[in-house]
Amino acid sequence: MSFTPLIRQLIDALRTLPGVGQKSAQRMALQLLERDRSGGLRLAQALTQAMEGVGHCKQCRTLSEDEFCPQCTDPRRDDSLLCVVEGPLDVFAVEQTGYRGRYFVLKGHLSPLDGLGPEAIGIPELEARIKAGHFSEIILATNPTVEGEATAHYIAQLLGGGDLVLSRIAHGVPLGGELELVDGGTLAHALAGRRPISS
Amino acid sequence: MSFTPLIRQLIDALRTLPGVGQKSAQRMALQLLERDRSGGLRLAQALTQAMEGVGHCKQCRTLSEDEFCPQCTDPRRDDSLLCVVEGPLDVFAVEQTGYRGRYFVLKGHLSPLDGLGPEAIGIPELEARIKAGHFSEIILATNPTVEGEATAHYIAQLLGGGDLVLSRIAHGVPLGGELELVDGGTLAHALAGRRPISS
Ligand SMILES: [Zn+2]
Ligand SMILES: [Zn+2]
Repeated sequence: MSFTPLIRQLIDALRTLPGVGQKSAQRMALQLLERDRSGGLRLAQALTQAMEGVGHCKQCRTLSEDEFCPQCTDPRRDDSLLCVVEGPLDVFAVEQTGYRGRYFVLKGHLSPLDGLGPEAIGIPELEARIKAGHFSEIILATNPTVEGEATAHYIAQLLGGGDLVLSRIAHGVPLGGELELVDGGTLAHALAGRRPISS
Repeated sequence: MSFTPLIRQLIDALRTLPGVGQKSAQRMALQLLERDRSGGLRLAQALTQAMEGVGHCKQCRTLSEDEFCPQCTDPRRDDSLLCVVEGPLDVFAVEQTGYRGRYFVLKGHLSPLDGLGPEAIGIPELEARIKAGHFSEIILATNPTVEGEATAHYIAQLLGGGDLVLSRIAHGVPLGGELELVDGGTLAHALAGRRPISS
């Protein structure tokens, strides 16, 4: 079947969504056009507003259009725990486990070959955040990949030697995997089984 | 996890896409925001342009922003065959079978209880299309549901009695199913096994 240019453009654009292949994109495009144009326009507006309006929380650096995100402003959370992750998708994954401490979101992991050192991923801001808070434990929940491990190790070296307990999520997280793809149960187990890092 | 209003609005809007549940919508929203904002804006623009710009082909009434769709303007198609379907998604489904005749797209099926009679679904336009063309066979490919069968029967009564062969797709299409959900192989079989309708 040949689609007209506007429909083809819509199908191509829908394919940029994660998990959407050619066939689902075609079905989505035709269904919106045939059955839900107002829903399609609403989605267009929501996309524009979010892409242009959402920035990063000033404190934890997760995605937020407000100065501070809900996780940072919630007074019922545990101020003694800080969980360090590689990105906002990981905050979402860790939240599924029932964790209710605070977060700090790095800009990915250290990657010297790509020129991404401590400043590029926000380590100075992490240090400032820890100094400004009253944490008793820092949970290093970077991805269980080589780069994530190296980043956790670097942070542990940097922060170690004081009263602060440094821990790393451990059991159940498959090596070489991506944190955001781990199911909630496995991740809850990994979080409960975290161990102190001896630096 | 609490999302900020703009992110929540985006997640809700993504859920209007067919096949997208809460969890996929969350992943889509965060991935676009974190990794592909220009892709998100491109999708917003493609949606707006398609929802506002795509109308219906003047001849077959499928989705098209041009006056006539690619299926109607393609000179290599068989002008002796006309396939009548309930909607543009069905054109897409029938195309997968390798069918290369012409189409006519109804606005759904007859539904007397909802006040949808022949005029509402475009039967007069179908008659005009057939009069203006040189078809030898009309394939009635409405859905194999009670309403689709009734609609095919109505059309067969209306058009029967002349030289025109009227056929109905038959084998392999599950009763009570939706044509657009049938896999290509089954539908190809059903199309090949079409039988004349004795009216
Ligand atoms: Zn925050
Ligand atoms: Zn057409």
